[in-house]
Amino acid sequence: MSASLPSQAGVIDVYFDFLCPYAWRGLELADVLRREHGLKFRLRHFSLVQGNHKENPDRKYPTWWLDHQVAGAGGDAQAGSLNAFLAGQAALRQGEDAAWAFTLALFRAVHQRAAGESAPNLKNDGLLRSLAEQTLDVEQFDRDFADDAGLRASLHEDLQASASLGVFGTPTFHLTDGNIAYFRFANLVTEPGAVLALWNLYTAVLTDGARIETIKRAK
Amino acid sequence: MSASLPSQAGVIDVYFDFLCPYAWRGLELADVLRREHGLKFRLRHFSLVQGNHKENPDRKYPTWWLDHQVAGAGGDAQAGSLNAFLAGQAALRQGEDAAWAFTLALFRAVHQRAAGESAPNLKNDGLLRSLAEQTLDVEQFDRDFADDAGLRASLHEDLQASASLGVFGTPTFHLTDGNIAYFRFANLVTEPGAVLALWNLYTAVLTDGARIETIKRAK
Repeated sequence: MSASLPSQAGVIDVYFDFLCPYAWRGLELADVLRREHGLKFRLRHFSLVQGNHKENPDRKYPTWWLDHQVAGAGGDAQAGSLNAFLAGQAALRQGEDAAWAFTLALFRAVHQRAAGESAPNLKNDGLLRSLAEQTLDVEQFDRDFADDAGLRASLHEDLQASASLGVFGTPTFHLTDGNIAYFRFANLVTEPGAVLALWNLYTAVLTDGARIETIKRAK
Repeated sequence: MSASLPSQAGVIDVYFDFLCPYAWRGLELADVLRREHGLKFRLRHFSLVQGNHKENPDRKYPTWWLDHQVAGAGGDAQAGSLNAFLAGQAALRQGEDAAWAFTLALFRAVHQRAAGESAPNLKNDGLLRSLAEQTLDVEQFDRDFADDAGLRASLHEDLQASASLGVFGTPTFHLTDGNIAYFRFANLVTEPGAVLALWNLYTAVLTDGARIETIKRAK
């Protein structure tokens, strides 16, 4: 295992849900790999609310889809994640760097909080628009965010792709060699050398000849 | 990560259930680490039937214990695994090498079968005694296997320890540094160099500063 060369050239799909703190850490990892080590990622949405929905006993063939739900319906997790995904889909229309900036800003707003600080409610558009002002062409964002049907169609593509692959949690990385696995770690890692070592460890697990299926801590 | 030195000196507890094909592969791995690379393992029992029992919603505090069940009660998995565990506890009374020989012989009888060959029924003592004849002092085995209360007490210690640790599947390795995780891989690995590389990869995941909690394939 080389410590100097990143594994997995090509475009790696990373599936995430803004609700998930592990997805936040995974996206920060991917962003360093992207900026410092030349890896390419495609931002894709997976919905935990949909994946865990009681009407979807077989995760590969959902009957309940988040993108088919009325805006604001359901609890905060359902309504908030739908709203955040649609904003994320709007951000993707402004190109890769803009989409990453918006996605990371949104993740940090939700998960990088001081102890005791309450999580923002993603049902409300105020936070999303404020983050769009900081990271995007906000006038274009306003126009794109109003294209509800188009954004839902794009979201559906991600939800369909992740369901077909059997994604069950986030972050999940789909490598260019076909390996795909959930990758959950508790500590934020942003130092470029440590990021690369962690990534190489993850990919070494997935490509080992023993065909490792699961490493999961007891607790 | 060195490829030449085994990680984790001291005695590593390995939890397993004879019902589990992944535990078989894990025990074969541990046996090579033990014989070829000087690692030390303690054989310990974890019951999947108990861990998944509907009367045990909190796996850390079971109310239904396998060692409290009547011999032969329940389905084949319950009755067979109890019987196999008691035989395994009897084998442990003949020392480490004998216990390993019996444990591996039993795992191979259950899981290393030709395609289409049916699994043996562990409820019947014939197989267990035949394996004891091949690997143990069979007269001592007969005496020890008759000590039902003593064997159940030893089994209970393992089931209590694994419950307290939150073990949920097998094989689970409890390293001497406190890290403990389920380790599931699909391909049997017995070549000493490959065994050591796989073990070092597993321990590298558990000791990484990111505190990796889960790597699990989507499928």
